[in-house]
Amino acid sequence: MRPSGRAPDEMRAITIETGFTKHAEGSCLISFGDTRVLCTASVEERIPPWLRGKGQGWVTGEYSMLPRATHTRGSREAAKGKQSGRTQEIQRLIGRSLRAVCDMEKLGERQITLDCDVIQADGGTRTASISGAWVALRMAVNKLMESGAIKDDPLTAKIAAISCGIYNGTPVLDLDYDEDSNADADANFVLIEGGQIAEAQATAEGATYDEEGLLRLLRLAQMGCGEIFKAQEAAVK
Amino acid sequence: MRPSGRAPDEMRAITIETGFTKHAEGSCLISFGDTRVLCTASVEERIPPWLRGKGQGWVTGEYSMLPRATHTRGSREAAKGKQSGRTQEIQRLIGRSLRAVCDMEKLGERQITLDCDVIQADGGTRTASISGAWVALRMAVNKLMESGAIKDDPLTAKIAAISCGIYNGTPVLDLDYDEDSNADADANFVLIEGGQIAEAQATAEGATYDEEGLLRLLRLAQMGCGEIFKAQEAAVK
Amino acid sequence: MRPSGRAPDEMRAITIETGFTKHAEGSCLISFGDTRVLCTASVEERIPPWLRGKGQGWVTGEYSMLPRATHTRGSREAAKGKQSGRTQEIQRLIGRSLRAVCDMEKLGERQITLDCDVIQADGGTRTASISGAWVALRMAVNKLMESGAIKDDPLTAKIAAISCGIYNGTPVLDLDYDEDSNADADANFVLIEGGQIAEAQATAEGATYDEEGLLRLLRLAQMGCGEIFKAQEAAVK
Amino acid sequence: MRPSGRAPDEMRAITIETGFTKHAEGSCLISFGDTRVLCTASVEERIPPWLRGKGQGWVTGEYSMLPRATHTRGSREAAKGKQSGRTQEIQRLIGRSLRAVCDMEKLGERQITLDCDVIQADGGTRTASISGAWVALRMAVNKLMESGAIKDDPLTAKIAAISCGIYNGTPVLDLDYDEDSNADADANFVLIEGGQIAEAQATAEGATYDEEGLLRLLRLAQMGCGEIFKAQEAAVK
Amino acid sequence: MRPSGRAPDEMRAITIETGFTKHAEGSCLISFGDTRVLCTASVEERIPPWLRGKGQGWVTGEYSMLPRATHTRGSREAAKGKQSGRTQEIQRLIGRSLRAVCDMEKLGERQITLDCDVIQADGGTRTASISGAWVALRMAVNKLMESGAIKDDPLTAKIAAISCGIYNGTPVLDLDYDEDSNADADANFVLIEGGQIAEAQATAEGATYDEEGLLRLLRLAQMGCGEIFKAQEAAVK
Amino acid sequence: MRPSGRAPDEMRAITIETGFTKHAEGSCLISFGDTRVLCTASVEERIPPWLRGKGQGWVTGEYSMLPRATHTRGSREAAKGKQSGRTQEIQRLIGRSLRAVCDMEKLGERQITLDCDVIQADGGTRTASISGAWVALRMAVNKLMESGAIKDDPLTAKIAAISCGIYNGTPVLDLDYDEDSNADADANFVLIEGGQIAEAQATAEGATYDEEGLLRLLRLAQMGCGEIFKAQEAAVK
Repeated sequence: MRPSGRAPDEMRAITIETGFTKHAEGSCLISFGDTRVLCTASVEERIPPWLRGKGQGWVTGEYSMLPRATHTRGSREAAKGKQSGRTQEIQRLIGRSLRAVCDMEKLGERQITLDCDVIQADGGTRTASISGAWVALRMAVNKLMESGAIKDDPLTAKIAAISCGIYNGTPVLDLDYDEDSNADADANFVLIEGGQIAEAQATAEGATYDEEGLLRLLRLAQMGCGEIFKAQEAAVK
Repeated sequence: MRPSGRAPDEMRAITIETGFTKHAEGSCLISFGDTRVLCTASVEERIPPWLRGKGQGWVTGEYSMLPRATHTRGSREAAKGKQSGRTQEIQRLIGRSLRAVCDMEKLGERQITLDCDVIQADGGTRTASISGAWVALRMAVNKLMESGAIKDDPLTAKIAAISCGIYNGTPVLDLDYDEDSNADADANFVLIEGGQIAEAQATAEGATYDEEGLLRLLRLAQMGCGEIFKAQEAAVK
Repeated sequence: MRPSGRAPDEMRAITIETGFTKHAEGSCLISFGDTRVLCTASVEERIPPWLRGKGQGWVTGEYSMLPRATHTRGSREAAKGKQSGRTQEIQRLIGRSLRAVCDMEKLGERQITLDCDVIQADGGTRTASISGAWVALRMAVNKLMESGAIKDDPLTAKIAAISCGIYNGTPVLDLDYDEDSNADADANFVLIEGGQIAEAQATAEGATYDEEGLLRLLRLAQMGCGEIFKAQEAAVK
Repeated sequence: MRPSGRAPDEMRAITIETGFTKHAEGSCLISFGDTRVLCTASVEERIPPWLRGKGQGWVTGEYSMLPRATHTRGSREAAKGKQSGRTQEIQRLIGRSLRAVCDMEKLGERQITLDCDVIQADGGTRTASISGAWVALRMAVNKLMESGAIKDDPLTAKIAAISCGIYNGTPVLDLDYDEDSNADADANFVLIEGGQIAEAQATAEGATYDEEGLLRLLRLAQMGCGEIFKAQEAAVK
Repeated sequence: MRPSGRAPDEMRAITIETGFTKHAEGSCLISFGDTRVLCTASVEERIPPWLRGKGQGWVTGEYSMLPRATHTRGSREAAKGKQSGRTQEIQRLIGRSLRAVCDMEKLGERQITLDCDVIQADGGTRTASISGAWVALRMAVNKLMESGAIKDDPLTAKIAAISCGIYNGTPVLDLDYDEDSNADADANFVLIEGGQIAEAQATAEGATYDEEGLLRLLRLAQMGCGEIFKAQEAAVK
Repeated sequence: MRPSGRAPDEMRAITIETGFTKHAEGSCLISFGDTRVLCTASVEERIPPWLRGKGQGWVTGEYSMLPRATHTRGSREAAKGKQSGRTQEIQRLIGRSLRAVCDMEKLGERQITLDCDVIQADGGTRTASISGAWVALRMAVNKLMESGAIKDDPLTAKIAAISCGIYNGTPVLDLDYDEDSNADADANFVLIEGGQIAEAQATAEGATYDEEGLLRLLRLAQMGCGEIFKAQEAAVK
């Protein structure tokens, strides 16, 4: 049924290699099958101007694809002189998601930037980015707590994201590129450990879907994020 | 309960003034309470390079806020030299939504651009834009059919969008600015007449929400879009 | 003679609808026939860096055309990433004109920005912008005086602008688009109530003109501005 | 009276050194006192896309100030990544002026670009640019005629430009920087040999002026351009 | 002597992991100690406009640092909207170097882009980029030859690059970041297997150097490149 | 042998006209044959943010070609909105070279910008820029010392630059455009009076070169810079 031969509710293999680069306060290379994203967390003792003097911190995200992460080479955004709408949409989503599980007052007046750079793309790069960014953030916050810079843990829960969609009429979990480019509907869910939803985005492509379809996608996402939470747990131990 | 005194499932007054400008093939000024957006549809007998020779058309959207549409003056994107991530996200949503109800082969090798310019903002500008853009698109397509340029109607259904959210713990419909800036969750639904979903986006702000919350927001949106479909019907008659 | 059937010294109908938007400190929708411009005045309690500490204020203008204000859709300057030379020339003219009738010391250390957004264009958009911007400025200054923020009225006079040109050899007043695109000469005058000139710009297009021609255009402009001053007076009462 | 000790109708010394650079088809270094502008005319056998196939040519202008042409160093527009509104306004004026004396059909399907680069500034750089650009254009056209590329002379007349203004209540000709920065009114006239006006621009600065003032400025400009026409004549012989 | 304890002529460990990403026609992750660069070669069946119809191909390079490749986070060039002078200088060097060993006629009318993205930086990123880019290029060209698209091998030799410098008065090979930031002179050599020089760049920092110094640096580079050629040979076998 | 008929070690005529513009603290027009560059030194009593409070100054360079400095007109970087990689590479080289002979502590907390604008190009514009910039810098520093702003001379030596290359197999000095575009190797040396090297850059074009070739080029450059040092000495006396 699925090009990869996976069952509808079957995820691709997840691996999380922490400490992939040495300078960042937290880093990991996360893989969902052939999708590989390098996530780093950088702590800076400064905050955006509009937050100064409010006794709180900030968490933000940036996202990019290496030019040849994809089947055919894409042009480099730095060379074109601007980031695409898609890039901006994704990095806004990454920042918003991670802020949903971080208490800004406990973080204190500092900023953590989560850079998600896609080394290789095979569908689901934005959800892998969020899932990996949490690992990098967790590591960076641990380091701040160990050094005594932060007293109380600002991270309130794990957060993870997964794509799902309707492929040939069937709801499926964790779309790869072949499925993604032919899906009838395409959804991304960002879920918090414990059952809460941080973000739900579902888009019809070609065919549309109804309330029932939305619910079935959400339930697949809940299953998928359960597996990611376990992989995150193992990675940061 | 609500700052405006509205009931949780009560929309603001909707007005649609068609033919607001004379040059565009279709145009309307749509109001949801104090939110007012000028929507125009421009037909051009050319298509994006990547579509050439495929015998189909294209529908795209652009969005902008006038600098003083808001409480305090925002800087002009043309002067800053780039569109914000928010602007790009919204205009991608507008285009995607309208394409969901347009058969590109019946449209033929031409492009229709839907410009949504916010004259005055009081919450819900992106959903008013989509709802008004459909009216402008309908008018432009009518004109193409009357002139004989198009034979079969490419528009497959009405499409409308509405925001809803959780305000003080209660799901409410059609948020105005006061509610929007204090909501626990903020959702936008783009619905197709007949019950299908084109797009669902729900974001936790501060508090998160669960499956039950998502469903209640969707049902409010279905009620709201019902009213918008009626207003669209009246406008294009 | 004239495509519109007007007499050489006949203006189009002028209407000025004040309070067209609610957030701005002053606003109006001004129409010269089918040319319609939304003018807003925004007061900000900050001044450009080079004026700090000098005990005076600043008045500046910005100008834009909505993409489909014109016969064929123009590309959006925010999307192209820069303002055209024409746009910049016009907004410099708007700011300079309004500053000619405003005493910057009486205004105090604040800035008023006049945004002129062309909703529909049919010739004469820059002159309608200046004429409408004065109304918005007058309203904003009135509000500052009522609140006690300003003591002495900084506005020294009314200011208005009108185009005129030589069409088929005859000097004519208030060119619409059809005339403008075929005129032999094209002039814009910004006049101050009482007979003084703030700005005169006359350009030969195809045919050139001489001293006599320049004078005849100026006299037409004086007639036209007389009518605009009356419309402004009625609008701000 | 005047800071320079000149009489009100006295020009600064004009010099025109032709052939200042060797690659351009026409070039000169024009000086009005301490204002020095390098003007080059470059012929290219291609035309802008919107003119293709119409059997006519195009003349356009570009303008720039070297960073240290002025009293204090200005930042380089290439480094800032955009041309100022003032630069764009001036280069539009240069192109428009030269086109007023060039028959585009006789020019044939080619483009001549007039680059005006200000080496040293002391007031009147835009008018020196236009006056010098005509010399460079004349030389380039002569070369095209000598080579047989053009048969009939496309240049219909000489064109020259001069600034004048009201300084301490007195109309004066050819303002230098000290006068320019303190003038009550500032005007630029572009005149065609024989008495016709191509462009008149007069701006009040501080004080305003009336019809009589405008006429007196125009007459000074006519005197000044008379001298420039002689210098141009001598230069191109 | 050296912060790392290495002998003056001692290189860091070199590793080259080929096939690091799957979409590119050639790819490797090259490491010089802690400096790690992902190099990919992308083949496209199109050439720059100025080469069309000349029967030859093109090889070009692009370079970027991930934001947190360095000790402190650098801002993302795509977000700033332009590439730094340093980035442009390096990518010009990469392209020029690889073209020095590629016969453009044998390559045929196609372009190969070498993307060098620095994953982790510890000095010598540009030289690692060139050395790794050759491996990626070799793999891509092999693929083109295997498929029959190219008949004769266009690569004429191996090419490699290494940095060296004068540190505390002593010429040393393969500078890491600690040395690089304190060196008296800093040189990069691009050498061709067999003894020829493609590029020599030596810059004094603080102290200057003389002919003797330049020669000693060149000889260190020759030793270093010898080792790189062996690593390249092993990698592409 | 050489297109110009010069001997392999023969320089073109060098002229340095100091005080070419009046506003800059130091200026000269330097010519190497037909290559002419206007160099100005501008003193500003401010320093880059990252140097504040360190008790030292800064020297930086900017470089540009006038559009028609070359055989065919190049497009203006200010109009394109960005500086080319070549421009940035050259201006970084200019700044680095001049800093090599300036003691930043003796200079004090001020910045000197060296603007090098190429009026006419015939090969060797970057080396003429550096050689002329030293003259402008020397003049500006003299003025600072005469006024008492600086006590001890911050300039430690003369610095000059020259190109050389391998043309038809023979090492030649001071390449003009005809040679430059056909050279087998192309080198630029920046030398300090007394024999030290500030910068060496040698690039193979087509043919490569070896250690012996590099040395021969360096020796030619030493001869050439000897002549430039004399011309600089005469110019600043």
